[in-house]
Amino acid sequence: MRAAPAVVAVDPRVAALRDAALNDTLAWDLVEGLTTEIGPRMDGSAAEARARDWAVARLTALGFRNVHVEAYDLPVWTRGAESAAVISPYPQPLRIVGLGNSGATPPQGLTAPIVFFASYADLAEAPQASLKGKIAFVSNAMQPTQDGSSYGSAGAARFVGPAMAAAKGAAAILIRSIGTDHGRGPHAGVTNFPQGVTPIPAAALSVADAENLERMVKRGGEVRVHLLLDDHQIGQRRSGNVVADVPGTDPAAGIVLIGGHLDSWDLGTGAIDDGAGVAITAAAAKRLLDSGAHRRTVRLVWFGDEETGGYGGEAYARAHRGELHVVAAESDFGADRVWRVQTGFTGAAAPVGDRLAAALAPLGVVPGAGAVHGGTDVEPTIAAGATGVDLNQSGLRYFDWHHTPEDTLDRIDPEQLRQNVAAWTTMLAVVADAPEPLAPAGGTH
Amino acid sequence: MRAAPAVVAVDPRVAALRDAALNDTLAWDLVEGLTTEIGPRMDGSAAEARARDWAVARLTALGFRNVHVEAYDLPVWTRGAESAAVISPYPQPLRIVGLGNSGATPPQGLTAPIVFFASYADLAEAPQASLKGKIAFVSNAMQPTQDGSSYGSAGAARFVGPAMAAAKGAAAILIRSIGTDHGRGPHAGVTNFPQGVTPIPAAALSVADAENLERMVKRGGEVRVHLLLDDHQIGQRRSGNVVADVPGTDPAAGIVLIGGHLDSWDLGTGAIDDGAGVAITAAAAKRLLDSGAHRRTVRLVWFGDEETGGYGGEAYARAHRGELHVVAAESDFGADRVWRVQTGFTGAAAPVGDRLAAALAPLGVVPGAGAVHGGTDVEPTIAAGATGVDLNQSGLRYFDWHHTPEDTLDRIDPEQLRQNVAAWTTMLAVVADAPEPLAPAGGTH
Repeated sequence: MRAAPAVVAVDPRVAALRDAALNDTLAWDLVEGLTTEIGPRMDGSAAEARARDWAVARLTALGFRNVHVEAYDLPVWTRGAESAAVISPYPQPLRIVGLGNSGATPPQGLTAPIVFFASYADLAEAPQASLKGKIAFVSNAMQPTQDGSSYGSAGAARFVGPAMAAAKGAAAILIRSIGTDHGRGPHAGVTNFPQGVTPIPAAALSVADAENLERMVKRGGEVRVHLLLDDHQIGQRRSGNVVADVPGTDPAAGIVLIGGHLDSWDLGTGAIDDGAGVAITAAAAKRLLDSGAHRRTVRLVWFGDEETGGYGGEAYARAHRGELHVVAAESDFGADRVWRVQTGFTGAAAPVGDRLAAALAPLGVVPGAGAVHGGTDVEPTIAAGATGVDLNQSGLRYFDWHHTPEDTLDRIDPEQLRQNVAAWTTMLAVVADAPEPLAPAGGTH
Repeated sequence: MRAAPAVVAVDPRVAALRDAALNDTLAWDLVEGLTTEIGPRMDGSAAEARARDWAVARLTALGFRNVHVEAYDLPVWTRGAESAAVISPYPQPLRIVGLGNSGATPPQGLTAPIVFFASYADLAEAPQASLKGKIAFVSNAMQPTQDGSSYGSAGAARFVGPAMAAAKGAAAILIRSIGTDHGRGPHAGVTNFPQGVTPIPAAALSVADAENLERMVKRGGEVRVHLLLDDHQIGQRRSGNVVADVPGTDPAAGIVLIGGHLDSWDLGTGAIDDGAGVAITAAAAKRLLDSGAHRRTVRLVWFGDEETGGYGGEAYARAHRGELHVVAAESDFGADRVWRVQTGFTGAAAPVGDRLAAALAPLGVVPGAGAVHGGTDVEPTIAAGATGVDLNQSGLRYFDWHHTPEDTLDRIDPEQLRQNVAAWTTMLAVVADAPEPLAPAGGTH
């Protein structure tokens, strides 16, 4: 039998801010605006630059202080014409999308037999050079998980599958999309080739196309596929982070860093990834801004380039390494409800985590005791000493649409979006005014 | 209070055939084969010709008699490169698909302001010549209906909207897809321009894109769109119907014609439209074939070209006008369960309809008293005197995927597919052996 949980009182001012946030309209307004007025915004693109201008205008109009862009350069990969088709024995087109950092095929494309692997592990066991002149086809399926952990396991086919296939001499690689849907919209995403490995053409099939290709493989005989990817690295381009403050009354108490990322993949309009995250965190920060003085500065950052390398998060940490960040948290897992909270508060700061859990409980949020993930954009700041706070969103639908053309506004449930704003508002209200020292290594400030 | 329904006995042989069909595997096998081994098969295409060869081989192997192709020619329209984008004030790509019979844009595309219409009716009320140099944007939404009737009302925007816009001088027309989903896969389908009206470029936006464009319109100001459609009529091409018989013992009793269409749109693999229909009717006919002698010949036809003009159904009726067809029925509304039966049996033949309704009741099928629709492929045969029988499938999900890239095998629920086979088997068992005369004008044979 479980022990009865300790009862922790919730500050009525925190509860009032939390409950008011359940009627939030700002987060919807922001993500509606970003997806309608900007749309897709790949890192280093003109659209991403327009998104920064849009962000500065909106955040300034909302009354945030110190709103500005912090620019940096990053290497950019771009998608050109892409197509694929089965040539024999069952000729028909296939829906694909090139993976970020994919190599290009010859201009006229390439045609080769496919070699089927049920998983990345099977690909890894293929003999060296056994894929010479062949297209590896890795087709592991992904099941939805609330905590998103299936992305890590199924995702290996994308993260490192292309490098593995290249090392074994493959002419190209096709993977089943890393997604939990059964649709025709392939899932984009980066892959990485280590130094010394020449990138090969690498693309994701839609789940439905991968299943069709699997059925062809099961009939036996050689399946030949034509693949064309006019995808290229185009060198350094400009990106940037948009920074906005809610100044606190006690500069020595440190900064609470929150945000999401402004860039998106090119196929959808970047609604759940990560228009929702920038909107949720901005709406919560705005509620702090409007609710009177608070002890700690809340800093909202809409990071550039999360998708292709996390250059935004690294640039922020580098530019601000002289400042004391006591908490760092990111919203980058869609717009479905927050179901769990996990924090790194320990020692003298542990009561802050307990108060946060108590304040979030009425929103249906359960406390977790796992490792804090943080998120790509805030990991460098957490690594530098800030305490991570995870407000985990449900991932049960996220990978149906993640990195696909279907990442559009209509995938956002306004009621769940408001619950997110309430959770983030609660978190900010608790940590911004916590009397405990919050700081690197368990609380020396 | 409703009157108690009349009790009609069900022939145990009919019931046994019906119940055995609930374990059918042939329909799945056929639609799996057609979508995997052939895939999309536009009318007049090489893929449609491969589908005919595949069909003859499969139907012959199944033991059908008199399996053959009846060829005819038809005018063919083909899709080339297609793209669209908002140019200002919110530049971003739009997902579109050209409508069948669309005109082409200039090779470099055209750019023009859009004029928004909430419905086809609003477009119809626009002043003559008011659309000169503009792109009409008709954005009526469609709600799902079990009987599919919303297709007729919402569909006007596609069926006749382009001709109406052309008549008012529009440079082009964009319509919200005629579909009940919120996804990014635009819904294809034909439109028609009357003699004397020069076809204009006409395309469907995905529902999500139409909603995004509507949001831009609501912000006020001119929205300019670039549209490129390299779509063309390419002249006469060869198509054909695949015909297969289950011969009856009494040639004078007339033919029971059933089937679906073998052609499909090019975006999906033609699973629900209409791989399911050809598979369901073939599986039912095969059960009759294997169940001993029956009075009437059951003729299975897999029609060519339903999608772009119904040339297949017309060619069949023309070629077979000397034969007595007593019943004609088609499965062309997906793979979801049959929920209603409607027939044209009257007079001396009325008891056949009653026995059919009674035999279908255990499958959850309700009797309807509305007009019999028949279906594009069998309408010419019904017009020539055959009695129509409608086994109406639920349309609640059909228009989520109809004519889109999402029309793939995974949209078929195997259990509902089997219920369809049971319903069709029941229908064939009842009408093939009905002792009543079944014939033109209520039963003179």
